[in-house]
Amino acid sequence: MITENLEADNRFMTEALRQALMAYEEDEVPIGCVVVANDRVIGKGYNQTQRLQDPTAHAEMIAITAASNSFDGKFLHGCTLYVTIEPCAMCAGALHWSQIDRVVYGAPEPKTGFSRFTPTLLHSRTRVSGGILEWDCRELMQKFFAEKRKGAEK
Amino acid sequence: MITENLEADNRFMTEALRQALMAYEEDEVPIGCVVVANDRVIGKGYNQTQRLQDPTAHAEMIAITAASNSFDGKFLHGCTLYVTIEPCAMCAGALHWSQIDRVVYGAPEPKTGFSRFTPTLLHSRTRVSGGILEWDCRELMQKFFAEKRKGAEK
Repeated sequence: MITENLEADNRFMTEALRQALMAYEEDEVPIGCVVVANDRVIGKGYNQTQRLQDPTAHAEMIAITAASNSFDGKFLHGCTLYVTIEPCAMCAGALHWSQIDRVVYGAPEPKTGFSRFTPTLLHSRTRVSGGILEWDCRELMQKFFAEKRKGAEK
Repeated sequence: MITENLEADNRFMTEALRQALMAYEEDEVPIGCVVVANDRVIGKGYNQTQRLQDPTAHAEMIAITAASNSFDGKFLHGCTLYVTIEPCAMCAGALHWSQIDRVVYGAPEPKTGFSRFTPTLLHSRTRVSGGILEWDCRELMQKFFAEKRKGAEK
């Protein structure tokens, strides 16, 4: 785990977790995200692929678009994205185009996470930290899928 | 070049080129896209990253979201996406989640195209064809960037 400012990282990952909880409450895969600039949230989002019936409606995509709007520019220079689960290739590709400074994720995602692809999907200027509030981020996902399995067995 | 139905592929790539021309006329990088189901366009889009100041506003992302809306479902089963330039990693990632049947592109994009990444970014069920109306698709891009360079030299 590489952190740069543990207090801020925990605080903003807690905000991302709050977004994930909103997804959970709407029966969506519980992943949440915030984009931060100058110690302030400028974009947030949670997974809404079911509700919007849109495969692109991941938490990160919604938060990146929101941040770009608030930031008045398509580059997220000076920004950090916090997301509860390691981003997939689509979201990493979006982060590449945004040229964001830093990506911080909670729990790794070995099956669909961006870090299994080569060459790296992120921009060379982007720093990455993983493992912030990992247990909490993973627990929410496990709870969601355990309940889905339980429902399916009924 | 692998084609499955050259007449239909040329016809729908011409539709995608029409979208690319709209991007060109709005001073956007001229890439256009259509999504087709049952021989009918159900989603279309052109690159709007400058206008929307949004790094995620690629032609494919807009067309995928539009098609999902029209299709009443987040999976694009039975669909083909036509795009004038080889999709980037972000768009390939979105196509992965959509589980689309087929992707057809005009000109390859060696620098940012999805095919330079491993493992493959597309879903295992997705077939790919490249090189449809390649010359026309590439020519529009070359014209755009030549004019940009000329403008910068002034």
